[in-house]
Amino acid sequence: MATPLFSNNKNYFVSLEEALKLSKTIKIPTFEEKLPIENTLHRVLTNDIYSKINDPPFDNSSMDGYAVIYSDTKTATENEPIELEIIETLPAGETSNQKLTSGFAIKIMTGAPIPDGADSIIMVEKTKKTNNKVLLYSPSFPNYIRIKGENLSKNELIFKKGTYLTPREIGLLATMGFSEVSVIKQLKISIISTGDELIAPGKELLPGQIYESNSYVLEGLIKEMGHIPIRHNSVSDTIDDLREELDKASNISDLIITSGGVSMGDFDLVRKIMEEEGNILFWRIKIKPGSPPLFGKWKNKPIFGLPGNPVSSHVVFQILINPWLKFITNANGPTPKIVKAKLLENIKLKKEFINFSRVIVENIGTEMIAYTTTHQGSGNLHSLTASNALTILPYNEKGTKNQIVDVLLL
Amino acid sequence: MATPLFSNNKNYFVSLEEALKLSKTIKIPTFEEKLPIENTLHRVLTNDIYSKINDPPFDNSSMDGYAVIYSDTKTATENEPIELEIIETLPAGETSNQKLTSGFAIKIMTGAPIPDGADSIIMVEKTKKTNNKVLLYSPSFPNYIRIKGENLSKNELIFKKGTYLTPREIGLLATMGFSEVSVIKQLKISIISTGDELIAPGKELLPGQIYESNSYVLEGLIKEMGHIPIRHNSVSDTIDDLREELDKASNISDLIITSGGVSMGDFDLVRKIMEEEGNILFWRIKIKPGSPPLFGKWKNKPIFGLPGNPVSSHVVFQILINPWLKFITNANGPTPKIVKAKLLENIKLKKEFINFSRVIVENIGTEMIAYTTTHQGSGNLHSLTASNALTILPYNEKGTKNQIVDVLLL
Repeated sequence: MATPLFSNNKNYFVSLEEALKLSKTIKIPTFEEKLPIENTLHRVLTNDIYSKINDPPFDNSSMDGYAVIYSDTKTATENEPIELEIIETLPAGETSNQKLTSGFAIKIMTGAPIPDGADSIIMVEKTKKTNNKVLLYSPSFPNYIRIKGENLSKNELIFKKGTYLTPREIGLLATMGFSEVSVIKQLKISIISTGDELIAPGKELLPGQIYESNSYVLEGLIKEMGHIPIRHNSVSDTIDDLREELDKASNISDLIITSGGVSMGDFDLVRKIMEEEGNILFWRIKIKPGSPPLFGKWKNKPIFGLPGNPVSSHVVFQILINPWLKFITNANGPTPKIVKAKLLENIKLKKEFINFSRVIVENIGTEMIAYTTTHQGSGNLHSLTASNALTILPYNEKGTKNQIVDVLLL
Repeated sequence: MATPLFSNNKNYFVSLEEALKLSKTIKIPTFEEKLPIENTLHRVLTNDIYSKINDPPFDNSSMDGYAVIYSDTKTATENEPIELEIIETLPAGETSNQKLTSGFAIKIMTGAPIPDGADSIIMVEKTKKTNNKVLLYSPSFPNYIRIKGENLSKNELIFKKGTYLTPREIGLLATMGFSEVSVIKQLKISIISTGDELIAPGKELLPGQIYESNSYVLEGLIKEMGHIPIRHNSVSDTIDDLREELDKASNISDLIITSGGVSMGDFDLVRKIMEEEGNILFWRIKIKPGSPPLFGKWKNKPIFGLPGNPVSSHVVFQILINPWLKFITNANGPTPKIVKAKLLENIKLKKEFINFSRVIVENIGTEMIAYTTTHQGSGNLHSLTASNALTILPYNEKGTKNQIVDVLLL
């Protein structure tokens, strides 16, 4: 077998850090579109957002009760209540035209603007109303007034461009008065699975064949990142078919992801065609599982060549493609949820690799624990559905029982 | 002010546990639909899934190399290699017609079926090929063969009904040969914000008004749970308008969520109309923030009445509606990510309540830490966008500096 040419290159078998750094040297343009805020879930802001208003926009009551003047109420007790005359009832949404003076009270609902002259609120539970009079059984509280702008000031920078929008950011956009915002257009991402042995699920399985599954996993992961997957039919192992599909993908998509065909084998055609006709930036990474990936350009489009093993393919998406997509879109999310957990067992590691073992992480009693389940073969997708996290055990780490390690929640 | 009638009921001001238990006594029917697996992301299986195949479906090679007979190779060393004659090259997807006998080897690619007669694999890196001969520099390995069914057995129960589908479960459905599966139909959920002071973002803000934001937050949270939000226009504070909108919602939706109007105030019309014309199962919960919620039925549809404060509304959705939706759809996910973190400060708690304070959780050095940021007023949605977790501090817990507490990652 001829040695692959690229293995003489300095970017052969790089560390994950190097791979991440190198991947960021290939960029693609992004575009923006203006959308109603209700259509921006999991999208990324293209502009800094300054609040259009003060939040709250005016001093208002945080309680149902009475707006009063504190000096009128400070001697009120359970036994010696103070009586005030009610001159108005103020629901939220309405503004009083009257200026409150000593001896009077304005009944006020949560959220209603504080009337002129009032400096404090007494909650309804501390009062008793009879016709147009109210008895106060305790002094009023100035801190039941929410002060104009105490949450947000008008023209304050609230979200930087690149902010990833979850329901709560979208809510705050509404609070600030935005009905639409500019976000980055979703990227179109082609997924091409390769291999003569692959057949689409639903068809009859012939001897030597397996069902193609990676494209479905990748499709879901791309959707979860907020982009548009384009799943191609899987390509059989001929250079011509592969070239045709890669050309097609480079015409319709912003990024190409292939699955399979990146190892040393004679029939690993993605690696072969990329060596001969494409442009490889790096090949192979010191991670386990998932060491075979390549990254480069096909025509003018970036291409990630993922390994065919389903677990490897999933892991590499999470730790290599996910950060690249965030880099390209300048996005600050979604944030990987990396937490600490105690290993309940020794984990078999490959030295000088970052090891992403599938584990179950549980929050029990006073600690977080992590343990493995089924066998860890990278062909075993079942091991991934039976897990809820991946260890992140760096180079030369031991992975011994009772060690506290980082785990990435899936 | 007239005391609300319901406050004399035993289900007034219940614990969170009671609220969760009571909420599960009101059920709604769910329906199923058959979908191509690529359209089932974040949906829930309605049937147990048994594998249609063994995974792998046949013994196959986990390496690029040669399929050989171990007894031929066991004396092979770097200095005294063994020579075998290559009779065939076997790519993945093809099956050999030949039975391997002593003295011969079949070149084999990763994933290709093990030929009859072969019992082990030697990886290509430990060999040297010359024309139709191969020199082996080490013994071969039986464990480079992936055994038929080692991941999954045909007819084995793999997913129970109720399984929540993430990209990896969808991948495993493909692996098992399923091109479509039955999932629970998405629920239609009406969202009605109430309050005279509310105005839609984008319009001009008049004195006393604030922008309506809760419906946008709830819409996003419902989408993230895999269901269909129907956002109604916000309702001003008249009983007739509210009745009309609730009737409309009960006709078009499976569940109604209102925001605002559930406190003690004269204008808290959701509480009022539910007391007078609806059916309240419980009202008020011992949680902070978010104590005012009610739950019951309007006509034949369940209704959650959430508080109008945006932080409260978000919290109550997460801890009350989210589990109810999973219960109704019998779903095992999405799983709340609850982890341990060390408090960097004392947290002000309301005794006899479960306290969900907004915190920033970070994984630093050897531990997870949690600390608060902006002020914790429940009207301050900004405090939620500036946080990434909520504490879960149960009844009578202290919340003191250096305490290890549970936090719900947002």
